Amino acid sequence: MSERWKVVIIGGGFGGLSAAQHLNSDLVDVTLIDRRNYHLFQPLLYQVATGSLSPGEIASPLRGILGQQKNTRVWLGTVVDVDTDAKQVFLADGTVVPYDSLIVAAGSQTSYFGRNEWQEWAPGMKSIEEATIIRHKILYAFEVAERISDPEQRRAWLTFVIVGAGPTGVELSGAIAEIARQTLKNDFRSIKPEEAQIILLDGAPRVLMSFPEDLSKKASRSLAQLGVQLKCGAMVKQVGEDGLTIESDSRTDSIAAKTVVWAGGITASPLGKILASRTHTETDKGGRVKVNPDLTIPSQPDIYVIGDLASAMDRKGKPLPGLAQVAMQGGAYAAKAILRRAKGQSEPPPFHYFDKGSLAVIGRAAAVADVFGAHLSGFVAWLVWAFIHLMYLVSFQSRVLVFIQWAIQNLTFSRGARLITGAAPTDFNFSKGISEIKPEPVNAPH
Amino acid sequence: MSERWKVVIIGGGFGGLSAAQHLNSDLVDVTLIDRRNYHLFQPLLYQVATGSLSPGEIASPLRGILGQQKNTRVWLGTVVDVDTDAKQVFLADGTVVPYDSLIVAAGSQTSYFGRNEWQEWAPGMKSIEEATIIRHKILYAFEVAERISDPEQRRAWLTFVIVGAGPTGVELSGAIAEIARQTLKNDFRSIKPEEAQIILLDGAPRVLMSFPEDLSKKASRSLAQLGVQLKCGAMVKQVGEDGLTIESDSRTDSIAAKTVVWAGGITASPLGKILASRTHTETDKGGRVKVNPDLTIPSQPDIYVIGDLASAMDRKGKPLPGLAQVAMQGGAYAAKAILRRAKGQSEPPPFHYFDKGSLAVIGRAAAVADVFGAHLSGFVAWLVWAFIHLMYLVSFQSRVLVFIQWAIQNLTFSRGARLITGAAPTDFNFSKGISEIKPEPVNAPH
Repeated sequence: MSERWKVVIIGGGFGGLSAAQHLNSDLVDVTLIDRRNYHLFQPLLYQVATGSLSPGEIASPLRGILGQQKNTRVWLGTVVDVDTDAKQVFLADGTVVPYDSLIVAAGSQTSYFGRNEWQEWAPGMKSIEEATIIRHKILYAFEVAERISDPEQRRAWLTFVIVGAGPTGVELSGAIAEIARQTLKNDFRSIKPEEAQIILLDGAPRVLMSFPEDLSKKASRSLAQLGVQLKCGAMVKQVGEDGLTIESDSRTDSIAAKTVVWAGGITASPLGKILASRTHTETDKGGRVKVNPDLTIPSQPDIYVIGDLASAMDRKGKPLPGLAQVAMQGGAYAAKAILRRAKGQSEPPPFHYFDKGSLAVIGRAAAVADVFGAHLSGFVAWLVWAFIHLMYLVSFQSRVLVFIQWAIQNLTFSRGARLITGAAPTDFNFSKGISEIKPEPVNAPH
Repeated sequence: MSERWKVVIIGGGFGGLSAAQHLNSDLVDVTLIDRRNYHLFQPLLYQVATGSLSPGEIASPLRGILGQQKNTRVWLGTVVDVDTDAKQVFLADGTVVPYDSLIVAAGSQTSYFGRNEWQEWAPGMKSIEEATIIRHKILYAFEVAERISDPEQRRAWLTFVIVGAGPTGVELSGAIAEIARQTLKNDFRSIKPEEAQIILLDGAPRVLMSFPEDLSKKASRSLAQLGVQLKCGAMVKQVGEDGLTIESDSRTDSIAAKTVVWAGGITASPLGKILASRTHTETDKGGRVKVNPDLTIPSQPDIYVIGDLASAMDRKGKPLPGLAQVAMQGGAYAAKAILRRAKGQSEPPPFHYFDKGSLAVIGRAAAVADVFGAHLSGFVAWLVWAFIHLMYLVSFQSRVLVFIQWAIQNLTFSRGARLITGAAPTDFNFSKGISEIKPEPVNAPH
């Protein structure tokens, strides 16, 4: 086994997992390293944040997925550095892992554009822990509003602001609107959940900037129907315990809101910069490593960078977007290239991203889809969305469960995972009309 | 609405929820207060701890369960005191809630018999947070063992000790044995998961002391078949980072184990002592409030104490056990007594607990059951167990899901919720052969 070509994959997301699965061959030994023991189906993370799904339904242990693949081992660990001369990867615990080929698929993280202190008040949407914190905050806000008497305070607790009107922000705000209007309809006595304000902010002039303009308009209309207030062209200036300050049309406004979610931007994993400096390569302004047309690093034919960490171009010289599809196709490409090399075959043609389209779901049964150039919206688009997502979950046990849970929800509007877990909430002082609850820090274990 | 009889229920567990559901009447206004927003189906908590079920599948929001019951409101809050003269309940945030009738169903918590410092190394099995920590510890131990080279250290990581051989301890150790022997069979490369040692300890001379002796023997045999080592008559003397010290037959032994779970004992909620002191009532040695045959506190005909917090006797003067059944029947009894009172009817006859029997499940398809005096074991007992548990979940959406998940597991031995969530594990130093991982503190949010 030790004589075989050694492939190390950093990251078990869409890119890394796809690469590992395409390396199922006796020619290579594969080691997949991730800080987590599971693969996360990020496109459904907003459903965890809004209590529709449990974490276990959108995440699956990497060992389980790759258990039958005998040439592959999974290691729990954090990669901190790479020695490209000695061809070694270093883990935080001091372990040294040698490679013949390296696939770096370390992904991206939430970016606060230099204002990391906002994270405390506006958690991002990249991990199960963050999604659980957001779920806690949303459900807890309704609980507080139910018991508070001061109308101004109550309004602040019933105001939900989502920063960033990309697919995640659109999906999240639609889901919160549905919780407020439908799911909790009968559950409260003092408040009317439909009084809740859901505000979706973006600096861009329209929602879903990466979509064609007609679909973006349709999405806006669907959001408005659900009761989401759109504020495009608005820049966030400050975020704090009691809400946020925004600037639009050179006017500054304050929004009193106890729940703010940051779906505003991402930046590459710090490993990108480390790798770039070790290999004298450039990164783009998002911290992504500029790669060759075959996804290798210039002058490093044995190192592939794929997915959100790579700054790759399509044939027209346009940068490839940070989508699961791009990462998966990149992983498959890198795997095949490595297998060719292990077989002594020639280099493959450059990587070509096959764009199947984009999708964003808005609420319970509507979506917009740009599929192979066709622009779909409404229920038809939702069906396409549901079909594609369920198909991806094909390798997980959870598929059946997710489907049934969706079906039940669509019939009943109920949400099964509406739990406020974590430390018992700090009790707040209703008699003073002000709250002493502190949201849990984003780094807290969840 | 304000002229109606005001009933306050403290606690949304089996007792409190049952009381609330039996108080669905226009004659009364009900306020149910709990620190959590959900009802937890505790008998299945061990399945969360072992990755079979997600928290959302065994917990259901109280608001959802009681949403259609218009006379009932749910409050998130912590009760800290009761003024029995003014008939008021005080919450930690300063809120004062008046009552005409009070039902106290605050339940119990894990007891370390005065050694609370052990909690850090041996989490209990009472909450979702604890179950998640235990799941983390179990799965993480296999991950570390996969990468560690020192055989002694590896053995300590692969040793799992469960303290307490009541139903929870028996169920948990059976489930861990199955994980080691079946679920993870194909998932590791360096270790053989079946090398894992699972040790079940108890100070009592046999497992399942509350069961008839023949069933206890059958349970021991089933556990042995699963590979669980039983150590009865063993007292825990010390618990620490690297394992525990036990004493049996006046011999002291050390067990090197990185994973210890405490299923060793419970004590009543501290509210019991507060209530007893306010009403000059006695508590038993478990901190439970001694109640009248009608479950009221002596000299307080408007205060009912039910479930794990109550020290009640059956007709033969034997104390009633801390079981879900006792709590539920107590809740129903208190509710009916209050409704009689609201209608001006006479006092009801004393509370009589109708014992339907006891059940404990051992592994995937075996159980022991003492049902209406019939002693069942093996698969038949498991069917009874599954049927009763599913029936209870009838009011939750989760029933269908739980059932399907069980069915899939029984077919495939796989476990869908095998996620190590929480803060990314501290990296440990394999090069030194020792670990620097600290288990998360039990109070940490999860």
